[in-house]
Amino acid sequence: MELPRIVVNFKAYKEALGKRALEISRAAEKVWEETGVLVGVVPQHVDLRMIADAVEIPVFAQHVDPVRPGAHTGSVTVEAIKDAGAVGTLLNHSERRIRLDQIEVTLQLLREADLISIVCANDPVVGKAVSDLQPDAVAVEPPELIGTGISVSEAKPEVVKRSVDLIEGVVYVGAGVSKREDVVKSLELGAYGVLLASAVAKAKDPYSKLLELAEGVITAEE
Amino acid sequence: MELPRIVVNFKAYKEALGKRALEISRAAEKVWEETGVLVGVVPQHVDLRMIADAVEIPVFAQHVDPVRPGAHTGSVTVEAIKDAGAVGTLLNHSERRIRLDQIEVTLQLLREADLISIVCANDPVVGKAVSDLQPDAVAVEPPELIGTGISVSEAKPEVVKRSVDLIEGVVYVGAGVSKREDVVKSLELGAYGVLLASAVAKAKDPYSKLLELAEGVITAEE
Amino acid sequence: MELPRIVVNFKAYKEALGKRALEISRAAEKVWEETGVLVGVVPQHVDLRMIADAVEIPVFAQHVDPVRPGAHTGSVTVEAIKDAGAVGTLLNHSERRIRLDQIEVTLQLLREADLISIVCANDPVVGKAVSDLQPDAVAVEPPELIGTGISVSEAKPEVVKRSVDLIEGVVYVGAGVSKREDVVKSLELGAYGVLLASAVAKAKDPYSKLLELAEGVITAEE
Amino acid sequence: MELPRIVVNFKAYKEALGKRALEISRAAEKVWEETGVLVGVVPQHVDLRMIADAVEIPVFAQHVDPVRPGAHTGSVTVEAIKDAGAVGTLLNHSERRIRLDQIEVTLQLLREADLISIVCANDPVVGKAVSDLQPDAVAVEPPELIGTGISVSEAKPEVVKRSVDLIEGVVYVGAGVSKREDVVKSLELGAYGVLLASAVAKAKDPYSKLLELAEGVITAEE
Repeated sequence: MELPRIVVNFKAYKEALGKRALEISRAAEKVWEETGVLVGVVPQHVDLRMIADAVEIPVFAQHVDPVRPGAHTGSVTVEAIKDAGAVGTLLNHSERRIRLDQIEVTLQLLREADLISIVCANDPVVGKAVSDLQPDAVAVEPPELIGTGISVSEAKPEVVKRSVDLIEGVVYVGAGVSKREDVVKSLELGAYGVLLASAVAKAKDPYSKLLELAEGVITAEE
Repeated sequence: MELPRIVVNFKAYKEALGKRALEISRAAEKVWEETGVLVGVVPQHVDLRMIADAVEIPVFAQHVDPVRPGAHTGSVTVEAIKDAGAVGTLLNHSERRIRLDQIEVTLQLLREADLISIVCANDPVVGKAVSDLQPDAVAVEPPELIGTGISVSEAKPEVVKRSVDLIEGVVYVGAGVSKREDVVKSLELGAYGVLLASAVAKAKDPYSKLLELAEGVITAEE
Repeated sequence: MELPRIVVNFKAYKEALGKRALEISRAAEKVWEETGVLVGVVPQHVDLRMIADAVEIPVFAQHVDPVRPGAHTGSVTVEAIKDAGAVGTLLNHSERRIRLDQIEVTLQLLREADLISIVCANDPVVGKAVSDLQPDAVAVEPPELIGTGISVSEAKPEVVKRSVDLIEGVVYVGAGVSKREDVVKSLELGAYGVLLASAVAKAKDPYSKLLELAEGVITAEE
Repeated sequence: MELPRIVVNFKAYKEALGKRALEISRAAEKVWEETGVLVGVVPQHVDLRMIADAVEIPVFAQHVDPVRPGAHTGSVTVEAIKDAGAVGTLLNHSERRIRLDQIEVTLQLLREADLISIVCANDPVVGKAVSDLQPDAVAVEPPELIGTGISVSEAKPEVVKRSVDLIEGVVYVGAGVSKREDVVKSLELGAYGVLLASAVAKAKDPYSKLLELAEGVITAEE
């Protein structure tokens, strides 16, 4: 399965919940149809099924718990997100860190279920460490830039470069990504794609914002 | 809002996921229509919206996180479960214990959102302690009996009695509840209702099982 | 055993570690000898034994883990703090919150070992809830005032009053306690004693500061 | 500083607490004096200072928390274990797992303090991942064998081999190590040393047991 170049995390934003989550997801689908740049969406657990039912683009969960189906009240299993239509999940986001042994167990469960894993890391070295566990992709996001609107590719281009150098396989970068140039720069530095949240999830016009970012991908590829 | 007499927790059972969760919920609705005994269902997060859309009986979440909407990747907020159609949530289930200060914060968020809280406790004394925080209901479940098929009302009737004595307000009891007699006995000992899981969630015929349990409620009330 | 009127938590302050922890503890002992006001000290785990060996005043641990001795690498058991000479422990401090069921288990372990429990709570209602589990004492500290130097008895006297009203048994109050008047006021409002940290643990002259606070106890008792 | 070939973890065993911890540590020191094989001991937090004061062999903590000194009630800081005389610490033991980002932060704190880090991992791949963060040593212990008395070198020699192959730097192996042959085999497979617990910590005669294990080191080196 093709991995999206732009991954939009809806976090627990109220601006990206329910009906609004659906609108953002449809905007993402439209941008993909118009530009050919694949955009993935990462809605809240309660919205996963509704969105996976409504759009053709890849839908990811924000987290899954490291347990098999069973007596685990409150847990979200790999089976549950798959049943809901997700193609994969983020894991170990800086707002939902888990232990290394839990990452390992969860990656195994995801592989068994044929789901995609994007494991987050706070810096290139940690990104390298998690890449040893062979996820499908690693997303490196310096936590201090998350939500700032100051892009990692601007503020810390060396983080992008070092991530790409250290990590074998697909590398996403994120934190503060909000403009066309951020995408261009990130991809030129060697990242496969970008992971972002508020710039799209809280945008007045998610479609225009996503179109701008998709054009960044196109520019970088020329 | 009327609180259900029978609350069915779907846990993370694969037998109570997706389509199957919908079937169990419809069976619960049918039993309510036929007997007048209100049954509440507690599906997995990914199923909440689908089930709340499909049935008229009260739908609860299994857990919510103690945070307001915002940058909390992977969290399930009170706003999210409300948007999905839940009327309330379980909290502090023995498979998902949280800290006392987190229970307090979450109860405040639930009250603001006009959602119902059923806080679980492992014994009557802890039930009494959580009742000081004024949830809508307390559910006492001795963890050692959960999933055994040996009902708390049979094996430990004193737990039911002591819970009812110590706790002001609505008391559910649970753990091992699976038969008509378990419901009769629990209610005769003073419980308002029962909380159960596998006996219904994994039943070959959830409708018949729920009907049997609802008849227990009717017997106890005569 | 007599409970101290003033309890000094050394936290993980470097100013209250090792040799310096010993000096503060000796100052506390001296104040007790001179004024008759009992002062308890709460050193870091690595200092417990050294300090319990050196002074006659009660020495408490800052935390114990809810496990019996066994294969629990990194855990601090009730048996360990007792062997080291502690007479009891703080539990559930706002900087080390634990779950309600863990508080219950740990209180049981402490009772079996004849050790004193002082369970912390962030507000009077939570204090009431933990008091249902029958610890030897409850310490109510509004977290927002901890370390501010603004005393709970000044800024929020109603927190002290309400704690005393709601909680049966010994009530400590804390957060921002740093002056003679804070102690006088806290005790006049009905608290048994005060829990404090930086005002003594980081003081240039812990002896003088403790003497000032002990005089507060004497004044309040007159 | 020379790293010990045999590292004895006292866990939270009551048989390895206080006076008894001192006896085991002295036995370890005696074995080192007699055989030249360096043995490290890993006592409980409350015993660290007493033991570091009493013996010349390296003393390690079982765990440190990922915080600098400050308002962290109940935490054990790098500064605290150093002040108590430890030369380093275990980290991420299977009984005290921490998150990858916390391992990274703690390793940084340990480096600043010139203390030795031995990071535990449950399998070779996780061992490789943590080795990317450049601890002084990695200890690989399959959790299912811990405490069984069935040595990893017997039951899973491939775990030892693969750990040695994947991990650059010093590799300890552990789980079930209890006999001379276990040490010989582990070192012949390429491990630098062994990490063990109950075989020594609960031994009737720790000195004889340690002597036996030290002879294993000597045999392997011939």
